[in-house]
Amino acid sequence: MSIIVQKFGGTSVASVTHIEHVARLIMAARNAGDQVAVVVSAMGDQTDRLDSLANEVDFNKPASRREVDVLLSTGEQITIAVLAMTLMKFGCAARSFTGAQAGILTNSSHTRARIQQIDTGALQNSIDDGEVPVIAGFQGVDEFGNITTFGRGGSDTTAVALAVVLKARECQIFTDVKGVYTTDPRVVDSARCMDQVTFEEMLELASLGSNVLHSRAVAFAGKYQMPLRVLSTFDDTPGTLITIEDESTMEQPIISGIAFTRDEAKLTVLGVKDVPGVAWRILGPISEADIEVDMIVQNVAADNTTDFTFTVSRDDYVQAMDILQQTTGITGIGAREVTGDNRIAKLSIVGVGMKMHAGVASRMFEVLAEKAINIQMISTSEIKISVVIAEEYIELAARALHAAFDLAEDSLTGK
Amino acid sequence: MSIIVQKFGGTSVASVTHIEHVARLIMAARNAGDQVAVVVSAMGDQTDRLDSLANEVDFNKPASRREVDVLLSTGEQITIAVLAMTLMKFGCAARSFTGAQAGILTNSSHTRARIQQIDTGALQNSIDDGEVPVIAGFQGVDEFGNITTFGRGGSDTTAVALAVVLKARECQIFTDVKGVYTTDPRVVDSARCMDQVTFEEMLELASLGSNVLHSRAVAFAGKYQMPLRVLSTFDDTPGTLITIEDESTMEQPIISGIAFTRDEAKLTVLGVKDVPGVAWRILGPISEADIEVDMIVQNVAADNTTDFTFTVSRDDYVQAMDILQQTTGITGIGAREVTGDNRIAKLSIVGVGMKMHAGVASRMFEVLAEKAINIQMISTSEIKISVVIAEEYIELAARALHAAFDLAEDSLTGK
Repeated sequence: MSIIVQKFGGTSVASVTHIEHVARLIMAARNAGDQVAVVVSAMGDQTDRLDSLANEVDFNKPASRREVDVLLSTGEQITIAVLAMTLMKFGCAARSFTGAQAGILTNSSHTRARIQQIDTGALQNSIDDGEVPVIAGFQGVDEFGNITTFGRGGSDTTAVALAVVLKARECQIFTDVKGVYTTDPRVVDSARCMDQVTFEEMLELASLGSNVLHSRAVAFAGKYQMPLRVLSTFDDTPGTLITIEDESTMEQPIISGIAFTRDEAKLTVLGVKDVPGVAWRILGPISEADIEVDMIVQNVAADNTTDFTFTVSRDDYVQAMDILQQTTGITGIGAREVTGDNRIAKLSIVGVGMKMHAGVASRMFEVLAEKAINIQMISTSEIKISVVIAEEYIELAARALHAAFDLAEDSLTGK
Repeated sequence: MSIIVQKFGGTSVASVTHIEHVARLIMAARNAGDQVAVVVSAMGDQTDRLDSLANEVDFNKPASRREVDVLLSTGEQITIAVLAMTLMKFGCAARSFTGAQAGILTNSSHTRARIQQIDTGALQNSIDDGEVPVIAGFQGVDEFGNITTFGRGGSDTTAVALAVVLKARECQIFTDVKGVYTTDPRVVDSARCMDQVTFEEMLELASLGSNVLHSRAVAFAGKYQMPLRVLSTFDDTPGTLITIEDESTMEQPIISGIAFTRDEAKLTVLGVKDVPGVAWRILGPISEADIEVDMIVQNVAADNTTDFTFTVSRDDYVQAMDILQQTTGITGIGAREVTGDNRIAKLSIVGVGMKMHAGVASRMFEVLAEKAINIQMISTSEIKISVVIAEEYIELAARALHAAFDLAEDSLTGK
């Protein structure tokens, strides 16, 4: 009998009623012939409630990160107990496991711990006894017995790691959407839930805002080639399977999906001297202020000066602009002018098919040109092309590209 | 340097503001020269919230008691994290310990576990490192690593047990009252907070409704002769010291306190045959229905029949009466009539001084007679006399006895 690992996120276990529904899904999977191990997140907004309790104490000394973990880990502990009780109520043998009880050994980096080893003895015994082990996601224990947590996306990571060590045939991430879409269905009516996508593609889509799965879990699953399925707790459809590139596929779709995000802003330093160290002098103070930089574009100009542009989260725009004004004033990098725009959006097309198809970028630019959409920045990777455009054009661009690359149709089956 | 154990109950740690106040009390005790280990309960109504979550699942299979413990133990775990963080914020080294981390080993009786052994290694290291260990009350771990909880009064028990193994000079139970009173101050204006009371007396007072300390913790402290102090988190007074009988005391007060409870009801079976097995046939079905019986009184009558009276919690009155009607009908114990009254109250006078003073009972009955209060039932132990009277007389009786036995004055010091 093969094992599957099922992970249920916060919205899937938001109440006892939700949890009863989840219990029925688990039992259906068992009746279908699989052994099931379950990973759960904290119920609904419980993590936020615990977070605000920690914030109320208003103390950020590193030593207290140990205590933040003691606090936050209670969220998942509540869920495992309630779900295990519910399964038993329905006649299904079950047993809860905290991270420590599940043998999830981590390093001692509190609030952002990394899994080092999983001792599956207790879990395997539970499975062999015919029970459904219900494991608290997001948490583990260090070698000294201290409780640790994994940071954002931690429950997905727990699920993937357990799937790997339990040699599961699949890791299923239940969430409140049907799967991974070709683009945001709120913007493009014809957006399609993909049957399948590669780990590489998912990584690009996840980090670009298709907020279904955390990158860390996807990368982890990719590393161990553990098939990952994203599916809905509230809708009986197969969802999206994230797996390795299928060599047998006759025809590879050119692009798999279109991701976009509105919450960016761009800043440009015009006419800086084109000498080594300029990028560092511009971005150093920005990163010291803990502002994360996304795209960076620099062109060489003919007159020994260059224009340097980068994007930040829109929330950080004002602070980044202030820092930039000071930097260019003080360090004498010879900037002619600093400009910025916080009404921009970033759009990316993603697909492993790009590797095999020439002309994807030019097709993209052609489509945008046809709609008279000006491209402000361009950045590319092997399986992704990102552009920055004025925010007001984002829906138009997404719809035009979705149609141009035939995403509404399943290019493999013609559905 | 000597160690004291301080325990703070739910109302003392109801909010972050409360916890900041508690942190200052702990630091004051350290500044006064003691090493301090702290035991805490769940914040405010957190335990009730978790309880209702368990009730919502509505499942009582014994197997799920393991999961109830996983659930309930999160309440104290939240408090230890928040208090440890708060102490650190104030510059006081601290470290939280779950029951398992504190080395509190119990048997496997989930929801009502008993402490079997405490491995003080980790706690002692923490104290030696100059930290305040902050320990989750009410919980431990069994030999298989399962989380267990202790049932009602469990945090007091944790505190006393830790005080014993850490060889503390005193165990301080902080609560929301000033200490143990001679009687209920809401009823008798002149009720006095006692400086000192014996373990024996406290046991009688606790089980009779002076709801400050759980009997189990008092019995535990008495067994190991660990001085216990009940004092207020919100009022800077020394509270009440519960300790062994002080042989050096020149004059022992005759009675120490008056306890009473209104939430009882009595049931009487009149004219049953006075033969062996009658008590069992009457009370067997009552206890099978999980109804707890308090006082039991039976008199032998002249005509080979007897009247059998007992009291139950007022909440159980209707059910107990139903059962009694059936029992007397079916088993043919020959009862003439079944009567009952749920407008009664029980009042007890308690004091080790009774052992040395004759006539305490008759003095009590005289006082009640003077006020024309009819005594319905009488029950006595070595250091306690309890009577059942009509509920409407309870305040009058308490005040009259409080005055008659000079409880308002401290009889040792004449204060």
